[in-house]
Amino acid sequence: MSNKLVGACVIGQSGGPTSVINASAYGAITAALEAEEITQVLGADHGITGVLDDKLYDMGLEDPQELAYLKNTPASELGSCRYKLADPDVDDTDYKRILEVFKKHNVRYFFYNGGNDSMDTCDKISRFMSKSGWECRVMGIPKTIDNDLWGTDHCPGFASAAKYIATSAMEVSKDGRVYPTGQVTIMEIMGRHAGWLAASAALATHFGAGPDLVYLPEVDFDQEAFLADVERIYSEKKSCLVAVSEGLHFADGTFVSQAKTSSTDGFGHAQLGGLAARLGEMVKERTGAKVRAIELSLLQRCGAHLASKTDVEEAEMAGRKAVEAAVAGETGKMVAFERAADEKGGYLCKYILLPLTSVANAEKKVPLEWINPEHNFVTDEFINYALPLIQGEPERPTEHSLPRYARLKKIRA
Amino acid sequence: MSNKLVGACVIGQSGGPTSVINASAYGAITAALEAEEITQVLGADHGITGVLDDKLYDMGLEDPQELAYLKNTPASELGSCRYKLADPDVDDTDYKRILEVFKKHNVRYFFYNGGNDSMDTCDKISRFMSKSGWECRVMGIPKTIDNDLWGTDHCPGFASAAKYIATSAMEVSKDGRVYPTGQVTIMEIMGRHAGWLAASAALATHFGAGPDLVYLPEVDFDQEAFLADVERIYSEKKSCLVAVSEGLHFADGTFVSQAKTSSTDGFGHAQLGGLAARLGEMVKERTGAKVRAIELSLLQRCGAHLASKTDVEEAEMAGRKAVEAAVAGETGKMVAFERAADEKGGYLCKYILLPLTSVANAEKKVPLEWINPEHNFVTDEFINYALPLIQGEPERPTEHSLPRYARLKKIRA
Repeated sequence: MSNKLVGACVIGQSGGPTSVINASAYGAITAALEAEEITQVLGADHGITGVLDDKLYDMGLEDPQELAYLKNTPASELGSCRYKLADPDVDDTDYKRILEVFKKHNVRYFFYNGGNDSMDTCDKISRFMSKSGWECRVMGIPKTIDNDLWGTDHCPGFASAAKYIATSAMEVSKDGRVYPTGQVTIMEIMGRHAGWLAASAALATHFGAGPDLVYLPEVDFDQEAFLADVERIYSEKKSCLVAVSEGLHFADGTFVSQAKTSSTDGFGHAQLGGLAARLGEMVKERTGAKVRAIELSLLQRCGAHLASKTDVEEAEMAGRKAVEAAVAGETGKMVAFERAADEKGGYLCKYILLPLTSVANAEKKVPLEWINPEHNFVTDEFINYALPLIQGEPERPTEHSLPRYARLKKIRA
Repeated sequence: MSNKLVGACVIGQSGGPTSVINASAYGAITAALEAEEITQVLGADHGITGVLDDKLYDMGLEDPQELAYLKNTPASELGSCRYKLADPDVDDTDYKRILEVFKKHNVRYFFYNGGNDSMDTCDKISRFMSKSGWECRVMGIPKTIDNDLWGTDHCPGFASAAKYIATSAMEVSKDGRVYPTGQVTIMEIMGRHAGWLAASAALATHFGAGPDLVYLPEVDFDQEAFLADVERIYSEKKSCLVAVSEGLHFADGTFVSQAKTSSTDGFGHAQLGGLAARLGEMVKERTGAKVRAIELSLLQRCGAHLASKTDVEEAEMAGRKAVEAAVAGETGKMVAFERAADEKGGYLCKYILLPLTSVANAEKKVPLEWINPEHNFVTDEFINYALPLIQGEPERPTEHSLPRYARLKKIRA
């Protein structure tokens, strides 16, 4: 474990961006710049595709102040990708090319920040390097707003999206209630298979004002029960806010977003209207209420102005821990979070390492016992789980009262 | 002008909510509570409909700390309405009822916070009271995110929405650029007749990263020029962010949001897809690019967490000035903003009064000379106009890292 390995490192970003993926990059880059074993810190342009193209930037040439701005810059400053590597036993072309580029730059450390698929990429590269005899330590850094990575209490990126969603739900819940004529508002939230993000809207209800109803993809969608729920609340309160996961599906597995409504005819609608619009149509038909359909779309994953300080700090630490562990001799692992308690019983995050093989391609969903028996809200267990994660306001550098993001020089190595 | 008038006052909120309409209510309520001529401060439930229903809340019974939270609470805490009063010469039923309620509570001051239509309501009530011999001073307080009120340099509510839009555009512009495969993103922004809000997205471009193209309803939409613009930028940069006003229209006056695209057939689409989705379809057909359509929807008008401090302060002052002017003897006027310069040439807002008759039902649009000759962006004049308005971060009380809004008791008078 303590064999000293000297060489360059590559840091790459992969998959859908988050508000804090750049905070992880910052943690990894600064830790790597500090490590004496690491001779050069390279940032891959658009993840693994930048390695394949030998498009690598020398992070040591960046202005440290600009690197620090990465902590508050959303999206993916080095660029991301959704490139899936083949099974090396079937086609090892890409792997040979990666090895070639790694040898060219004497890359001995590879840090990859991403979700399920990216951990799979990490794992495959790790095994190929090991087989080919090129000593290279490979570490995964978790990331996904969807919070569906297996083995970790939560994922960097989730909490900031959750905070954006809860805050927006609170604001919209105020707005949806202003007219005496009433309104039903449907808010569509990301999450194809796991409902962590839609569930987060319930934080708003718990601490002021938020959705009356929350539907998650962990359970089958019952259209009749949904319409009855909305009708009941609307008739009581003259307003109803509904939070829905984009991945809602009927018992037969078909997505609700592809359901037909009586005023649609099935041609081309899948491109135009999303789930919220479709549910809105159903509600309008049933209740006659004025309906507003809102899709949080990309806003929820790049809303760094509402980032959670806890999330930013944990994301940075995840990057840093990956580098420190690799330098200390670890490889083939992902940094993960374990929830612990401090002396006063408060929230504390412990950083652990998991074998990549155990993480890759597994999916963690909202436990069914955190969904109420009516399947239209979450229980207090979810609130207790999510609340500590969204705490704290990070520093938010501005210029002219608008966000000041990192401006990297990106000098090719 | 200096005749002392003693009695109660009614404060009402009307029209579409904003992030700062409650800050105006706070300014008016606190000024009225301080004024010795005002014996009782009444908040109307849902604007003029609350007067008609005699549903009035005694603001003097509220906890002062909760009233102070109004400064940071979005939407319309007393409730709003879109009720249009008849022409009093045709049907004076409502006016007689208002007079009855005013007499019951000895209401001698009426403050109404709203946009064009609300100033019309103010004006009609003012004239009816005067004709019927019931001395009641009526003052309008401006409000609209659309910024289209005539006679005032800008409207309370606009700047906070503009700041939300510019910040979101900056974040989305980062997000839309992460994949090497490219993306065109269309962001739909409120504004049926005036393009002030869509223009505000250009602030992001000016100070970091934002839309490449901005289209306003002040000029006819040229579909072919639009597609050529997007195609050119997408082929150069592999990404393109477009900001559009919901009110875009063709030369014949029809809304672009109602245009047919080749993959749609005209049945029911108007309900499902908005302008962004429609333009997205056109772009996809033309360029083959991956397209994301984002509607900022209600989020942009209730996004108080990104409010401009300048806007919050001016909104509060607008409410306060209305009360002070009325107590001093003014009536039939609206508080308006005049742009002035401080000693160092910096931005300064002066508060003036305009006759309601000159404001009601007039509309202020973006000057054509602030739109570039290609009709696809705004000039620096717009940036210079809007930038001072979005400055400063107001205090933002939170609880558990979520917004802490006012919780009024609303005790009936």
